[in-house]
Amino acid sequence: MTRRDLERLGENERRGFAWLGAKPGDRFHIAITLDNLFVAGLAYHLGLSMVGAAAVRVGAQPVRRHLDLMKQLRPDGLVAVPSLLLALARQARADGEDVKAFAPRCALLIGDSIRGQDLAPNALGRLLEEGWGGEIFSTYGLTEAGLAFHECPAHRGLHSHPDLVIVEIVDDAGRPVPEGEPGELVITTLQVEGTPLVRYRTGDVTFAVPGACPCGRGGVRIGPILGRKRQRMKVKGTTVYPKTIEDALLSVRGVENFLIEAHTGDGDTDRLVVRVGTLRDDPGFARAVGEALYAKARVTPELRLSSPEEVEALLFEGGRRKPRVFVDLRTPHGGAQ
Amino acid sequence: MTRRDLERLGENERRGFAWLGAKPGDRFHIAITLDNLFVAGLAYHLGLSMVGAAAVRVGAQPVRRHLDLMKQLRPDGLVAVPSLLLALARQARADGEDVKAFAPRCALLIGDSIRGQDLAPNALGRLLEEGWGGEIFSTYGLTEAGLAFHECPAHRGLHSHPDLVIVEIVDDAGRPVPEGEPGELVITTLQVEGTPLVRYRTGDVTFAVPGACPCGRGGVRIGPILGRKRQRMKVKGTTVYPKTIEDALLSVRGVENFLIEAHTGDGDTDRLVVRVGTLRDDPGFARAVGEALYAKARVTPELRLSSPEEVEALLFEGGRRKPRVFVDLRTPHGGAQ
Repeated sequence: MTRRDLERLGENERRGFAWLGAKPGDRFHIAITLDNLFVAGLAYHLGLSMVGAAAVRVGAQPVRRHLDLMKQLRPDGLVAVPSLLLALARQARADGEDVKAFAPRCALLIGDSIRGQDLAPNALGRLLEEGWGGEIFSTYGLTEAGLAFHECPAHRGLHSHPDLVIVEIVDDAGRPVPEGEPGELVITTLQVEGTPLVRYRTGDVTFAVPGACPCGRGGVRIGPILGRKRQRMKVKGTTVYPKTIEDALLSVRGVENFLIEAHTGDGDTDRLVVRVGTLRDDPGFARAVGEALYAKARVTPELRLSSPEEVEALLFEGGRRKPRVFVDLRTPHGGAQ
Repeated sequence: MTRRDLERLGENERRGFAWLGAKPGDRFHIAITLDNLFVAGLAYHLGLSMVGAAAVRVGAQPVRRHLDLMKQLRPDGLVAVPSLLLALARQARADGEDVKAFAPRCALLIGDSIRGQDLAPNALGRLLEEGWGGEIFSTYGLTEAGLAFHECPAHRGLHSHPDLVIVEIVDDAGRPVPEGEPGELVITTLQVEGTPLVRYRTGDVTFAVPGACPCGRGGVRIGPILGRKRQRMKVKGTTVYPKTIEDALLSVRGVENFLIEAHTGDGDTDRLVVRVGTLRDDPGFARAVGEALYAKARVTPELRLSSPEEVEALLFEGGRRKPRVFVDLRTPHGGAQ
C-alpha cells in the first residue's frame, strides 16, 4: 500500500467512526490485532487518529486483560469480533459484575454478521442485545480492497462510499440483479494507487437494500452477507446458504452443536442433511428444530439428532484445529460455480 | 499522545531507519507487536511510513511464521529483539538452511544490548555476529518519553536528537558527571504535547560517549545501558551491575545457567554471590569463571557451582513464570538509592 492508500484506508474508517459518534478526545479499545499483516487493525488506528480520538491498541489478549483495561481506561468505544463481547459479558458475570455497568457506549463489530436478511438482529445479534450494554454497529470489510462498509445510526444496511468504491450485485452471468435480490458482491475500488481492483468478484452473496436510508446519505447500501457464493445450495427449488441455516439452528434452545452437510440429490437439486447434537430426546425438540429451519430458511432438511459428543467428533474430524460447521459433499459440476 | 506526538514519535524512528539505509520502496519485517498498548511497534510503523518504506507488521509470531514470511517477502530490514535473531538462525539450521542466505541486510534491535562498555560486541553481540547475516544496529528506547536512541553506521554509541530530547548523565546528587563516567540517564523531552517530561530520572545507568562521532553528527551519544541504578552493587570498592556479571558469565563455555545474589556485607560494601549451574567438575572451570568475572567486571565474587537443575529451581523459585537472574537480598538502607 502506498502512503495515499493508507490515508484512504484511514478515511474510510474515519467515516465509520464518525457515524458511531466518535469525537476528538474519545478513547476506543481496539480488540483487533495490528500485527500479522492484518489490515483492519491498522485501518482503525488510522481512522481514529483522523477523528482525533485515541486508539487503545490492545489486539488479541485474554478476556481478563480486556476487562481489566476496560475498567481502568473506561473507553468510549470498542472494536471487536462479536464473540468477544459475549465472552466479556460471560466473564464479568462470573466475577459477579454486570458488563453493562462499564460497557463502552458503542461497539463497531467485525466478522460475523449480527443481522439477518430482514436487517433485524439475528440469533447472535439478539444475544448481544441481551448481554451487552452499548449500541452495536455492524461492518463488512474487504482486506484486498482496503475498505469497509459501515452501518449508520439508522442500522438499515451497510453504507458504501461512492467516492471510494463502485458496488454491483450480479447474478451468475455477471448481470446486475434488482435491488433487494441476492447476488454476488462485485466491487471496483476508486482512489487506490497500489493494487486497484476492477469489477472484483468477492464471492460473497448479499443484496442492495432498496430505497433511501432514513439518514439521508446516498450511495449503495448492502445487507448482511448471506453466504459464500460457492456454498450456495438449491434444495427442492429453494436457494439457501449455510449461514442462514446456522442462524436458524442457533435460535433453538437445546441445540448444543451442529454440522450442515450438502450432498448431491436428484436432478438439479441439492440434498441437505443437518446433524444436531443435543441432550434432549423428546419428540417436541425435533419438531422445534424443523419449524425454525422452515420459518427462517424455508427448507426442510433431513434432520439427524445425536449426542453433542458425536457431533463434536465430526466437527473436528481429520485432526482439524478449528471446527467446520459446513461440509460440501456434492459432486462437482460445471454450473455450480 | 496527541497527533503531533505521534508525528514526533515517527520522526524519531524515521531518522533511525535512515541511518540503517532505509529508502522508499524498502520492506521492513516488524517482529515487535503493535498491540497491547506497546508504543515501539507503532513508532516503527510511523517511521517507515515517513521514509516511504513498507512496514510488514508481523508482531509476536512463532519462529516458523517469521521464517516463512521472510523467505517469501525477502525484506530489506528487520526490527526485533536480539534473541529472536538467534532463534531464527537456530531454526533455519535445524531445517538444513543457512539464515545468512536470506537474512535482511540490516536489523534494528530493541531490548537487550549487544555491546559492552567498550562499545565492542558483548557476548550476545558476538553470538549474533557469528550466527546472523546482516548488519545489526542497537537502540535504546523509552516508552514514557516517546523516543529512542539509535546507532549510526559508525556504531560508536547511541545518538540522541538535540531537537527532541535534552540528555544529562548525573550522579546520586543529581550533578552532571564527566563524559565517559557512568551515571543515571536523565532526560527532558522537547516538542511533546501530551505528557512532557522535565529532568525525568530513568533509573538506567549509562555514560556519555566522549568525543565526536566519526559520522560527524552532533548531540549527546550514550553508551549501552550498564544496569538499573537500584541494582548497582559496590563490592570491595568496585561498582558493578548484574548486567556486567551476566555478560561475563555468558562468555564462559560450560556455564549452563546462573543466579546473581547481592547480600549486605561488612561496612559500606555489598557481598556478591554467584551461583553457576554446570555439568563440568574440573578445577579449570571454576578458574575460568573467576578469570572472566575479574577480567570483564573487576570483581571476585563468592562462586558456588552446582547442577543446572539446582540453579533452575532457584531461578523459578516461588512459582514465577519468568526466571530472575538477579536477587537483591541486601538490607535496605537510606543511602543505597
